[in-house]
Amino acid sequence: MHDDRMHVVIIGGGFGGIAAAKALADAPVRITLIDRRNHHLFQPLLYQVATAGLAPADIAHPIRSILADQQNAAVVLGEVTDIEPEARSVQLVGGSDVEYDRLVVATGTRHSYFGNDEWEQHAPGLKTVEDAIEIRRRVLLAFERAERTDDEDERREQLTFVVVGGGPTGVETAGAIAEIAFRTLSKEFRSIDPSSAKVILLEAASHILGSYPEKLSVKAARQLDDLGVDVRTGVRVTDIDGSQVQTSDGVIATRTVVWGAGNEASPLASSVGAETDRAGRAIVGADLAVGEHSDIFVIGDVAHAESNGEVVPGVAQGAMQGGKHVARAIIADLDGAERPVFNYRNKGELATIGRSSAVGVIGRFKLSGWIAWMAWWAVHIIFLIDFRKRFIVFFSWAWSYLTFQRGSRLITGSWSPRSDGVDH
Amino acid sequence: MHDDRMHVVIIGGGFGGIAAAKALADAPVRITLIDRRNHHLFQPLLYQVATAGLAPADIAHPIRSILADQQNAAVVLGEVTDIEPEARSVQLVGGSDVEYDRLVVATGTRHSYFGNDEWEQHAPGLKTVEDAIEIRRRVLLAFERAERTDDEDERREQLTFVVVGGGPTGVETAGAIAEIAFRTLSKEFRSIDPSSAKVILLEAASHILGSYPEKLSVKAARQLDDLGVDVRTGVRVTDIDGSQVQTSDGVIATRTVVWGAGNEASPLASSVGAETDRAGRAIVGADLAVGEHSDIFVIGDVAHAESNGEVVPGVAQGAMQGGKHVARAIIADLDGAERPVFNYRNKGELATIGRSSAVGVIGRFKLSGWIAWMAWWAVHIIFLIDFRKRFIVFFSWAWSYLTFQRGSRLITGSWSPRSDGVDH
Repeated sequence: MHDDRMHVVIIGGGFGGIAAAKALADAPVRITLIDRRNHHLFQPLLYQVATAGLAPADIAHPIRSILADQQNAAVVLGEVTDIEPEARSVQLVGGSDVEYDRLVVATGTRHSYFGNDEWEQHAPGLKTVEDAIEIRRRVLLAFERAERTDDEDERREQLTFVVVGGGPTGVETAGAIAEIAFRTLSKEFRSIDPSSAKVILLEAASHILGSYPEKLSVKAARQLDDLGVDVRTGVRVTDIDGSQVQTSDGVIATRTVVWGAGNEASPLASSVGAETDRAGRAIVGADLAVGEHSDIFVIGDVAHAESNGEVVPGVAQGAMQGGKHVARAIIADLDGAERPVFNYRNKGELATIGRSSAVGVIGRFKLSGWIAWMAWWAVHIIFLIDFRKRFIVFFSWAWSYLTFQRGSRLITGSWSPRSDGVDH
Repeated sequence: MHDDRMHVVIIGGGFGGIAAAKALADAPVRITLIDRRNHHLFQPLLYQVATAGLAPADIAHPIRSILADQQNAAVVLGEVTDIEPEARSVQLVGGSDVEYDRLVVATGTRHSYFGNDEWEQHAPGLKTVEDAIEIRRRVLLAFERAERTDDEDERREQLTFVVVGGGPTGVETAGAIAEIAFRTLSKEFRSIDPSSAKVILLEAASHILGSYPEKLSVKAARQLDDLGVDVRTGVRVTDIDGSQVQTSDGVIATRTVVWGAGNEASPLASSVGAETDRAGRAIVGADLAVGEHSDIFVIGDVAHAESNGEVVPGVAQGAMQGGKHVARAIIADLDGAERPVFNYRNKGELATIGRSSAVGVIGRFKLSGWIAWMAWWAVHIIFLIDFRKRFIVFFSWAWSYLTFQRGSRLITGSWSPRSDGVDH
């Protein structure tokens, strides 16, 4: 069966890839969206899974289901190993090739350990559902091990939690761990007092939430302090092993470390024939295409794009706007028209800190405290993908807010009662 | 600190163990409940997790949280390796001992392969959250692999699902897989038609749901048939490998097999010094204690108890009634009174088959169809442990019922695009 339509291949079913596919729903193209996961993940709420507030399925939705009604789109569960710009094809694990007329690379980032990959086993990052489940397991097991041990030193180490990186993910995770220790678990143990736990947030720069106005990052630090988080700025991590974190400011004995410090672009960015920046992102032109290969677009966290002289930030709205822009560029190609120039519009940013507290900038307004928290919450609920999840997340939250409970305190996978730092 | 109270140790936080602990809330005893999981699992709904209808956290609740307000109870996350009746102590992995005055063994069953343990990798059973996630992964991946392959034979094998065992778990699982194939996924694939899938339920006996009146099991088989399930009774499984199931009635080529056929008692049943029956269950007396060691009680699926001349069935109500009875026996011991005799009251049984269909017996009434389904549903919602889960499960169900969608279609863990039967 011959199909004359232009074939658009999209790699990645995150915010950017889904936006591109949906924006092409009425275009005379056929679309193949390839992802190695079967689900789109609402990453801004992933820290809630890592801290037992939401179940993985509450923030993940099958990509097939999102595109079920879009007849011009097919979804392939597969992992792309290579892109061959000259042959206009992408290669999948298992050997098969997919040829394209236009390619959209939207593969995102992984966390980066700045060359210290051996830290990963002791300090997992937070990008996938599996990452979140692993962090949840470690945090909950630390309390269980503290309850079981008779060794005072081990107990103190088990009850010390270190979060590395003062960006939104680090801030949100530290705030949520503090809530677990100081509120959720307060009555449930008999040998330990969970509220004797220490939650430490380390940031190498002089302020947390570096992309925010200084006034707001100071407020955020104060709100974290109120929650019981020990915020340490200007502190660099120099080594991590199973029982301690070494920093420029001394050693912290701990068994549980969460990594939220660095990101690096997916390695596919380097196969598209573009130059890359220091974070490994592909540098793209004003139309979001790669200079040498105008049939390849790169969007979202994996792209280094500029708009109005500034680098577009690696956030969900940047990816979604990029996806929509690429659809417009492809439609321009079909019409023989000139591609439009990408123009990023920052609609604001918000970071939550904990119960009733958040900071944010929306247009000219700087928000903090309860108002910012309500705004954060409304924005995130609205953007969750389907009605059912929106409702369940809303309800889970209202329930947690009223009862201080967390709905997903599951430890799954294997564990050992011993705590030698390697087997977490 | 010396504590004069009688020490009751409960092994297992299932229906039996939790019921025993709660029934002792006001007794002058101290309780230690040991489980190797941090959560109580509402097992009757586990098939919903395996078939993507509910998230694991919807049916699991931390044991600590259930007993948080019960001051005389402590919870230990630990795995018991041995019981020493003479020393009145239980041994935990990692080496520590816990001494008891009264011991309650409520450790349940695992599925059994009748001596063919090598079948397990190809045909996982359904007892734990991990089991359910694994089955969900295999079922969803089979459709993905069918979509990707060009080989007609493989496609047919990927779209053939075999459920072994026509008890409630097998019936419920087969019905739910049929719903996924024939309703939920119907519009989402482009190369395959999910409704061409085959779902086969194998039962060695002459009827499915053997514990039900024959009239109801015939009705259940007819309802399964209406859902598109191919029910084959009187068929024994003789071998299972990664690409086929051999039966007394021929070979079925399939990549996905779910095991719901046999149970065997947890091995701890044999450490209590009681005789065991063919299924490995400890034979207990009229007070549910072990003859030789009246300070050890065994309850739930791991016990072989009789009441009014009949063996108590291994169902949730049997375990819960056993737990409450043991509490009464322990209180009698404290009062120097005689222990009461266990008297099991069968409140009825219900099995669901699929959308709007179920069968059941409640008192003198035999129910089937929509009425039975509503009854099943009401009973299960009422017994779910906390209000929040009850609400979320209710809502998830109402949503699935109206939209034919399933809320937890996540494939997690590693997978490979190849399908060699070993790496599922």
